[in-house]
Amino acid sequence: MSTYQLPARVILQEEGPREGFQSEALIPVDEKLRLIHGLAETGLEVINCASFVDVRRVPQMADAEEVAARICRRDGVRYTGIWLNGKGFERAMNSGLDLIPNVFTSVSDTFARNNTGRNKAELLQVQSGLIEHYKQAGMRLGAAHIFTAFGCPYEGKFNADQCLDAVDSLLRACEEHAETPSVVYLCDTVGAANPLSIKKTVNLVRDRWPTMEFALHLHDTRGMGLSNVLAGLECGIQRFDTSVAGLGGCPFAGNKAAAGNVCTEDVALMCEEMGISTGLDLDLLAQVARMAEEIVGHPLPGKFMKAGRIPSSSIHAAS
Amino acid sequence: MSTYQLPARVILQEEGPREGFQSEALIPVDEKLRLIHGLAETGLEVINCASFVDVRRVPQMADAEEVAARICRRDGVRYTGIWLNGKGFERAMNSGLDLIPNVFTSVSDTFARNNTGRNKAELLQVQSGLIEHYKQAGMRLGAAHIFTAFGCPYEGKFNADQCLDAVDSLLRACEEHAETPSVVYLCDTVGAANPLSIKKTVNLVRDRWPTMEFALHLHDTRGMGLSNVLAGLECGIQRFDTSVAGLGGCPFAGNKAAAGNVCTEDVALMCEEMGISTGLDLDLLAQVARMAEEIVGHPLPGKFMKAGRIPSSSIHAAS
Repeated sequence: MSTYQLPARVILQEEGPREGFQSEALIPVDEKLRLIHGLAETGLEVINCASFVDVRRVPQMADAEEVAARICRRDGVRYTGIWLNGKGFERAMNSGLDLIPNVFTSVSDTFARNNTGRNKAELLQVQSGLIEHYKQAGMRLGAAHIFTAFGCPYEGKFNADQCLDAVDSLLRACEEHAETPSVVYLCDTVGAANPLSIKKTVNLVRDRWPTMEFALHLHDTRGMGLSNVLAGLECGIQRFDTSVAGLGGCPFAGNKAAAGNVCTEDVALMCEEMGISTGLDLDLLAQVARMAEEIVGHPLPGKFMKAGRIPSSSIHAAS
Repeated sequence: MSTYQLPARVILQEEGPREGFQSEALIPVDEKLRLIHGLAETGLEVINCASFVDVRRVPQMADAEEVAARICRRDGVRYTGIWLNGKGFERAMNSGLDLIPNVFTSVSDTFARNNTGRNKAELLQVQSGLIEHYKQAGMRLGAAHIFTAFGCPYEGKFNADQCLDAVDSLLRACEEHAETPSVVYLCDTVGAANPLSIKKTVNLVRDRWPTMEFALHLHDTRGMGLSNVLAGLECGIQRFDTSVAGLGGCPFAGNKAAAGNVCTEDVALMCEEMGISTGLDLDLLAQVARMAEEIVGHPLPGKFMKAGRIPSSSIHAAS
């Protein structure tokens, strides 16, 4: 009989207000705050609230500073943000959010150029600059992100070795500054992974860096989102980026249809049903997921919020 | 490094025109036929086309005979139907469909009574009658179905032993008539399974009946549909009921939201991406899935049909 090697506990990090809203039409700041405050009640430890990026390219995040300034903080919750360069980091620093200094690269050179205007080599230079920024601010490196870890629409699917090479180049760039991230996120930026590629890649990089924590940032672009989470859990992954209600995926937007992160409450339900603790209040999460649908004004892909729970035992079955 | 024990080939059996349309408003016969004929082009070997059940309870299937009569048959495709009693079997016999004589029971007594008006003991009696009907028609028993194999809304979740008991009682009833089904379907009728319960249950019943084929009939009610397929694949399951576009799940119908079977083309994509052959034309399936959305007049949950394929290799990457 085959057995599972599942972790006892996982951490789900919320991406809805950041990556989710980034894919939507403009959302009023009050509504963004309503979602962030609702999420903070559910037991989430990390909520990504804003991107400090070029507002001409991402107008949905033009209000990043205002959102950050108006958050009513709850103890034990880290309200984070992202940035892609030194200028963005300065903005994030001034915003008062809980910064997690990070570096990133992309397995796909084409994606790197399209997304950041720089090729992979240039991107590594930017990371060196970012690490120096962090040092000047008296901060240690927290995380590293590998974009398009499993494939991209331009260069196709990547094998585990190609992902390993990208991790290696980024970690070497960190080492040159005597820094090491505490966690490396393998990001399935465009939903190119499958359960087998997740397993192969995670196992390969973990064999190479056995003391490093690896995490997964997954999108449910082609319906394999939760299967990929399951494959990750079977490899012992304990940290996942997720998005309440599957925010970011819109059933009415053609190819953007299912582009959201894996759905927070659906992932949480699967974990809890398998005996893996998430520390989250599932019923409250489902309420907040329905709030997210109300805020964006259209159905979102999350399923648990629509179907509800299964009763847990048959002891008091009707006779 | 953990390894997968995956089958080389799986068979996906299409439920869309039967179980899918059963959850929708009335669909004109011409439109049902358009879907059935489209599906038959994709490589599917089995298409469930109609239910021969009480039309007062399931008015969507009142046209079962007309649908059956007007199918333009394609070689190599079995056009099947279902029934729940001797009267339904007579109708199915006269319809000209490709019958798979079958028996069924339910782990949940409450579900059995609500769904069939009979408790489990009475239901077993009905099965004895059905087997005699099959014998009189000169047909051997083909399949057995275990409804609510993993849980039901009334009695909660079931453990593997409870499912095993139901399989045992049904197989014993068959034995009394010197019959054995060639395949036993474990049906997650209401989406109560999780990957761990799938593994535990499949492994338990296979240890008990090692020469019997077990298959899975799964619903994506709470988002775990494809994860449950993956768990089944890891146990070596090679036959799944699926529904094109996830037909049966309607994002606008409250609790019916995600009640469809797992989506044929999404399951097929996951299998093919992991190197498991389905014999299906995925691009054609995606076209038929979009046709299904057109026929029902609202979005359906399938994701691959909206997102399309990932390019398979990076050899000719843009430089």
